[in-house]
Amino acid sequence: MRVPRSRPDTPVTLKDIASELGVSITTVARAMKDGHKIGAETVTRVRDTAERMGYVRNLDGVKLRTGRTFAAMAFLSFSNEEEIGDSGSVGLLNGIHHRFAGTDYAVRAVPVTMGDVALDRLQDVVRGRGADGIILDHTELQDPRVRYLLEAGVPFVTFGRTELLSDHAYFDIDNEHAAWQGTTALLDAGHTRIALLDGDRRYTFVRQRERGYARALGDRGLIPEPGLQVHGELAADTARAAGRVLAERGADGIVCVNELSFLGARAGVRDAIGVAAGAVGFSVRTGTNLGDYLGTPIHASHFSRVAAGWMLADLLLKRIDGASASECQIIERPCLRSPKDTA
Amino acid sequence: MRVPRSRPDTPVTLKDIASELGVSITTVARAMKDGHKIGAETVTRVRDTAERMGYVRNLDGVKLRTGRTFAAMAFLSFSNEEEIGDSGSVGLLNGIHHRFAGTDYAVRAVPVTMGDVALDRLQDVVRGRGADGIILDHTELQDPRVRYLLEAGVPFVTFGRTELLSDHAYFDIDNEHAAWQGTTALLDAGHTRIALLDGDRRYTFVRQRERGYARALGDRGLIPEPGLQVHGELAADTARAAGRVLAERGADGIVCVNELSFLGARAGVRDAIGVAAGAVGFSVRTGTNLGDYLGTPIHASHFSRVAAGWMLADLLLKRIDGASASECQIIERPCLRSPKDTA
Repeated sequence: MRVPRSRPDTPVTLKDIASELGVSITTVARAMKDGHKIGAETVTRVRDTAERMGYVRNLDGVKLRTGRTFAAMAFLSFSNEEEIGDSGSVGLLNGIHHRFAGTDYAVRAVPVTMGDVALDRLQDVVRGRGADGIILDHTELQDPRVRYLLEAGVPFVTFGRTELLSDHAYFDIDNEHAAWQGTTALLDAGHTRIALLDGDRRYTFVRQRERGYARALGDRGLIPEPGLQVHGELAADTARAAGRVLAERGADGIVCVNELSFLGARAGVRDAIGVAAGAVGFSVRTGTNLGDYLGTPIHASHFSRVAAGWMLADLLLKRIDGASASECQIIERPCLRSPKDTA
Repeated sequence: MRVPRSRPDTPVTLKDIASELGVSITTVARAMKDGHKIGAETVTRVRDTAERMGYVRNLDGVKLRTGRTFAAMAFLSFSNEEEIGDSGSVGLLNGIHHRFAGTDYAVRAVPVTMGDVALDRLQDVVRGRGADGIILDHTELQDPRVRYLLEAGVPFVTFGRTELLSDHAYFDIDNEHAAWQGTTALLDAGHTRIALLDGDRRYTFVRQRERGYARALGDRGLIPEPGLQVHGELAADTARAAGRVLAERGADGIVCVNELSFLGARAGVRDAIGVAAGAVGFSVRTGTNLGDYLGTPIHASHFSRVAAGWMLADLLLKRIDGASASECQIIERPCLRSPKDTA
């Protein structure tokens, strides 16, 4: 038997497999495809040899005939955060990757700096026909990227909703419920002056969270105080500054939009009021078990970012396969995990 | 003046700009290129119009003529970490992205699960000529991916070194120094039974760190105890289990490979010895300021992951432009940041 070819940059072809086994190319092609008119033993022998020789199914023909790229592009907002770390995109990317593994699709992440719409880069991909489908996160109410993709007719899925009248595919967590849940948990634990530390109001999910926060307060006859609400493109250091201010204003509970804002706010509260910080409660929208590792117990509105990424990729595959946008809309409720001593 | 065309999927051409302005295509082409034989005012007018109309320089011609893709692929190990979060890839990706922004290159991340070599996916990219250059992280001593890329002759840069005799481009931090620095800082602060909590020994950087740890102990006439060294594909929960064991074995200082292992180990030490945990010191190889946000002071071996990513991309561009591998090798020392009370 001959040694498999060692040049790593020339792909193994059906012809190579045929001459390795001394059979016709047609036999190899049929064995690799569906085994039509070929004995089961030959099918096995051809496929084993193909695998041993490192044969990769060449999609170039399909690509040329159909114009498909077999690439999915994920435009994900990565925080520029050197204070603490990631704000969650890694979990999403992992989940997206897991869904596409084993399919013909390659997934590529286009990192977008938090707060940048990056419409031009999206347009480059669409105009250059660089992907069969697109995933976006951090949607805005009248998201210009979504309007563009709707008009261009490219399959896409968003992590988050918009207020556009046109249907589009999305996966989202129930953000209003998450904020309601976190605020209510703090109220149930006896906190009374509850602050909201949240993202920029340009994002749909932030608007939904504001509503949940206000509703939870309203349920107890409380009125949201403007001085206890801080919004912005959150990073740990800005959250820390906000935490200081909120503690000085007498907040005894803080509803945090993510792990970064929690760690920042917690440090800020300590800066402001020292050991008295132990009496301030926190609820956090989170995809991690961070609370289990810290001294400070938290009320977690928990959802899995890996599962969210998986769902986004799954919905995109459905859209590429022709499912309607309205069939590809999923909202999931995060579950509350309260510390044992207050639950 | 006519309205810019609204079909978003048809690119604006030089011809469109010419007819918009009522000038020749040659004039537009020259104005966009170098302004040769064209008045400065026309150059400005053409370029402004091109920008307003959303003109994107089309690289297809160059791609066809040269076989270049203007894509760089970054194979980055993402942790599957749902306990705490990212182990650092986000910072790298941010830095890579910043270096390529404004160049003709698109950067795409291929997420690799920590511990997976993903040689097959690398081969797919090389065989399919999917990138002009490649970035890899988490190198091993005899890294099969590096051997493959050397043979295939594709420009690449690694985050981390190998022990291969062939020269290849890399950026790395001085891992031996980092571990020596962290261990020495704990010794200087009065700790005597210092443990090492580190990654899998398959990785070059882990071997380098072992050497630094042993050297720091040796400098004081101490001998590393096997029972105080824990290696593995680290996640927060395994680090927590390790922290428990190390505390029970009487470790009074722990040298941690990254933020995840630190947060895990810290929780594990608390599990094991409760309030006495306050006496255990930590040093952490980190790209963040996490220590500033927690109650526990740490000795940080600090390097910027964003800067590391930027350097990796910069070296890759140099390699693509023809610089030799030996010109593209950089090692940087992390700097020690000790807590104020012990420094």
